[in-house]
Amino acid sequence: MAGKEVPYVESDLYRIRHSTAHIMAQAVMEMFPGTAKVAIGPPIEDGFYYDFDLPRPLTPEDLEKIENRMREIISGGFEFEKKVLSAEQAKELFKDQPYKIELIEGLEQGGVDEYGDPIDEKPEISIYEHDTFVDLCRGPHVENTRKINPKAVKLLNVAGAYWRGDEKRPMLQRIYGTAWPNPKELKQYMWKMEEAKKRDHRVLGKQLDLFSYDDDVGAGLILWHPKGGRIRMIMENYCREQHDKGGYEFVYSPHIGKARLWEISGHLGFYKENMYSPLDIEGQEYYLKPMNCPFHLSIYKSQRRSYRELPIRYAEWGTVYRYERSGVLHGLMRVRGFTQDDAHIFCRPDQMPEEIDKVLAFSLDMLRAFGFEEIHAYLATRNPEKYAGKPEDWEAPTEGLRDALERAGVPYKVEEGDAAFYGPKIDLKVSDAIGRIWQLSTIQFDFNLSERFNLTYIGEDGEEHRPYMIHRALLGSMERFFGVLIEHYGGAFPLWLAPVQAKIIPIADRHLEFADKLYAQLKEAGIRVEVDDRSDRMNAKIRDAQMQKIPYMLVVGDREQEANAAAVRLRSGEDLGAVAVEDLIKRMKQEIVEHK
Amino acid sequence: MAGKEVPYVESDLYRIRHSTAHIMAQAVMEMFPGTAKVAIGPPIEDGFYYDFDLPRPLTPEDLEKIENRMREIISGGFEFEKKVLSAEQAKELFKDQPYKIELIEGLEQGGVDEYGDPIDEKPEISIYEHDTFVDLCRGPHVENTRKINPKAVKLLNVAGAYWRGDEKRPMLQRIYGTAWPNPKELKQYMWKMEEAKKRDHRVLGKQLDLFSYDDDVGAGLILWHPKGGRIRMIMENYCREQHDKGGYEFVYSPHIGKARLWEISGHLGFYKENMYSPLDIEGQEYYLKPMNCPFHLSIYKSQRRSYRELPIRYAEWGTVYRYERSGVLHGLMRVRGFTQDDAHIFCRPDQMPEEIDKVLAFSLDMLRAFGFEEIHAYLATRNPEKYAGKPEDWEAPTEGLRDALERAGVPYKVEEGDAAFYGPKIDLKVSDAIGRIWQLSTIQFDFNLSERFNLTYIGEDGEEHRPYMIHRALLGSMERFFGVLIEHYGGAFPLWLAPVQAKIIPIADRHLEFADKLYAQLKEAGIRVEVDDRSDRMNAKIRDAQMQKIPYMLVVGDREQEANAAAVRLRSGEDLGAVAVEDLIKRMKQEIVEHK
Repeated sequence: MAGKEVPYVESDLYRIRHSTAHIMAQAVMEMFPGTAKVAIGPPIEDGFYYDFDLPRPLTPEDLEKIENRMREIISGGFEFEKKVLSAEQAKELFKDQPYKIELIEGLEQGGVDEYGDPIDEKPEISIYEHDTFVDLCRGPHVENTRKINPKAVKLLNVAGAYWRGDEKRPMLQRIYGTAWPNPKELKQYMWKMEEAKKRDHRVLGKQLDLFSYDDDVGAGLILWHPKGGRIRMIMENYCREQHDKGGYEFVYSPHIGKARLWEISGHLGFYKENMYSPLDIEGQEYYLKPMNCPFHLSIYKSQRRSYRELPIRYAEWGTVYRYERSGVLHGLMRVRGFTQDDAHIFCRPDQMPEEIDKVLAFSLDMLRAFGFEEIHAYLATRNPEKYAGKPEDWEAPTEGLRDALERAGVPYKVEEGDAAFYGPKIDLKVSDAIGRIWQLSTIQFDFNLSERFNLTYIGEDGEEHRPYMIHRALLGSMERFFGVLIEHYGGAFPLWLAPVQAKIIPIADRHLEFADKLYAQLKEAGIRVEVDDRSDRMNAKIRDAQMQKIPYMLVVGDREQEANAAAVRLRSGEDLGAVAVEDLIKRMKQEIVEHK
Repeated sequence: MAGKEVPYVESDLYRIRHSTAHIMAQAVMEMFPGTAKVAIGPPIEDGFYYDFDLPRPLTPEDLEKIENRMREIISGGFEFEKKVLSAEQAKELFKDQPYKIELIEGLEQGGVDEYGDPIDEKPEISIYEHDTFVDLCRGPHVENTRKINPKAVKLLNVAGAYWRGDEKRPMLQRIYGTAWPNPKELKQYMWKMEEAKKRDHRVLGKQLDLFSYDDDVGAGLILWHPKGGRIRMIMENYCREQHDKGGYEFVYSPHIGKARLWEISGHLGFYKENMYSPLDIEGQEYYLKPMNCPFHLSIYKSQRRSYRELPIRYAEWGTVYRYERSGVLHGLMRVRGFTQDDAHIFCRPDQMPEEIDKVLAFSLDMLRAFGFEEIHAYLATRNPEKYAGKPEDWEAPTEGLRDALERAGVPYKVEEGDAAFYGPKIDLKVSDAIGRIWQLSTIQFDFNLSERFNLTYIGEDGEEHRPYMIHRALLGSMERFFGVLIEHYGGAFPLWLAPVQAKIIPIADRHLEFADKLYAQLKEAGIRVEVDDRSDRMNAKIRDAQMQKIPYMLVVGDREQEANAAAVRLRSGEDLGAVAVEDLIKRMKQEIVEHK
């Protein structure tokens, strides 16, 4: 099932957003006649923005006015008209707009587009005009403002942005907005934004005491607190069991390696900008590892391998360190140190199809086990411009991946020519609870490292052969996956993952004894349980347990204390009433087992 | 139970070895009359050595001759006599011995002893004389050579050693020897040496394919192969369960931290020589962590803590990196990167005695679980010259440690004044299967870090208080502990730790089918099992399984194939005969359970 969807930049929606950005710019210029300077205003994912240099900061009331004026302009039914100009004509037209002049000069020289982004050719200089507004623009646009639904347009917020992203240039005001084909889709988008804000893993991470970062420790380096650590350990243990069943063997490797290793692997050649500066040990340079592969290859190579030993599957929870600019760091999603559920499979060509089937099924099972039902696959094939080995080397692995996708019946899209130079791959992406897409698993052939390390095995024929080598990470990075999980569940983890599964809430001090007895029973049964023995009011304790998103609350009161917890409430607010503790344990265990 | 044993340097055995070294030197000088130059010859642990500058390399035959001549000298019944000389007299006496002249000059200047080692005072210059041999020497010696048992003396080997350990000075020949009170103890020592050689974890590590190091990866950095990784994972899982039961919570922290963190912790002040050179991230210096503490303290400090929350016990399998000179690196025992089973306990003063009891009992349980029965404790108390806090701060923790040792009934020795400046501690040492002593667990108070990070909790009184902070590592380092385990068990791991628990050995190809059935049954029962399906002869396969020290070998032959493995042999060579697979599984499971 190859995808047939139109790329975003060729879509109607892209035109709508682009045109809406122009309309917004018109409204802003009308608000600050003669003084507003316009910079750039492209469509982006889910909307658009426009950067302005204005005499004063915009207020929320300004945004409202601008939005109202935009609706009027849209209803005016103006045509968008394109004209091609010479550089001189363009400069004359924009003589009061210094940012545009700079852009025109860039276009004249070539090598950049009208947003100042690098392009190959020397572009023509064109403008788009509607009503009173004219902008330096390549398009495309809608033909008429009426193509935009005025009820499906919304301005979102204002943020500061340096001209050309350069902190030495002026700070501009960027207005973010969004536009959709109809009010229903806008509403859905606004809901999703609101939901995303509530699910922000950075906020929940603090509220639920899952993890933190500390400026003295360093940006992008995560401290996993006990509750986050508990979830990570459950994740790791579950994955480990599954890997064990899948015939993987666990290895452990160091976090630093000599420069020589990274020269052999080629990382110092083509990956150095992602690596940290070296440290020195007795005159030798060592680098923090950005990947685990060279170590696994070293273990493979520590012995002569026979065809009988293959497939070999080395797995490691390998913590790698990669350089990210501090500006792009984002909670758990983009960090400087993270732990991959990494593995490398070495197999004979005749074993390859079965190995791919297995690893694909394994990936799908894992993602489903963590609650992701909607999974999309992407097959990246050889880039004819840049590839290791011979074209025919790529055929069997690429077909192996494609056939496995077909056999697994997972919807997939072929991304022709999108493979990295070292081999074809499958990426798996999931939709989370609010429909956002996250790339998680990767299954990646590597013709480059197997060559660089000269991997071999002795075949049945007594000759040396080159094994196939497959990298794969199913969850990807523990940090990022945890971030996605937090946002997917909005912090309300399913019972098997919840760091605290049950909270016992004694109403008064005289209920403490029974609470402790309950605690011991649940603990004995392997339930992660806490007693809230503070002298707060019951409702405050319940509210607190809800804030902590604890699945089961056991409120202990006066009723039939010997046999029952007076009442069990679920996180959802549902009340189970009085439940015998044995039945509760049975119910919880059932719920835990069922995730698998 | 404070120890009363005489320190080695004051023991009779020390005198015997010292005198035997002189006697050896006499025998060597007689062998090379006029040409042998003598350097130094001290007693060492388990023996002695003497360094010589000789006209030719010594052969094993030479050693035999020297040893025989030594026995004659011993039987001669010569007195050892001490004389104090002036520097001039000494120089005259040793005028043909340039190394002695250099030592005399050192003694004259003061600050070094007669071995060239630094000392505080300016020493007197003395010699010891027996028979024809005289040596620059402080003593002490036996009164008469007859005090040495000639049948309990043995020369071991010759090795190269630079004069004064300086590679720019002459290379001398060092003869190692040993001496004991009686032939029985000598024999026992020689057996232990022989056993130690057979148990060398570096040799077994290769033979059993447990781990390796690789020059391209870097010295002192361990690659854990699948079989070693399997054992490590069993160790980790077992320890994790026990920590869980013990109320520890698991955290995860990064392997690098900003210079600022190590300034606050004081590591850059007093531990820098053990740390690697920094790496640079966007103009900030980061260091590989030599310890996990600052991260755990950062987590503690991420929130205001109440007395109700204490004790807090953070555990982490934390991989740390510490500088060791390449010359001292030794297999798994001394490495540059290792993983501690680290934890930090934060508690109120009133909780301290119970916490110490718990952690001590936990340590003892863990060491016993891994097969160490003989455990000795060492309590290090305040060094009056160098200590953090006030002397009275030390009293309760020191008594807490002492009382816990008394209550646990574990034999212990007080090492007065041996504590590090930041707090008192208990070290636990174990004797292995051949009687060697290994230091493993440490339970260490820290007044310094709790002060530097200004750790507090809000007490019941609403005021801020300082919690006690206790570092502890039970196994110490996973790498080193694994090395000790390999040598303790001589690679023949108990069933619960054995990476492969059973090997199925089909006699002929026609037995493969039943072998596979057996494999499936054992695997299903959770047994780690392999089939040796190579076409080798049965005896070769059995020998191989024995070399691999696999506990159970299931030899599959023609007899009653449907119900039985024809024969089960144990690693020890014991033959269980035909055993029904169900009974075998039961037996194995019982054996695994019993270790706990």
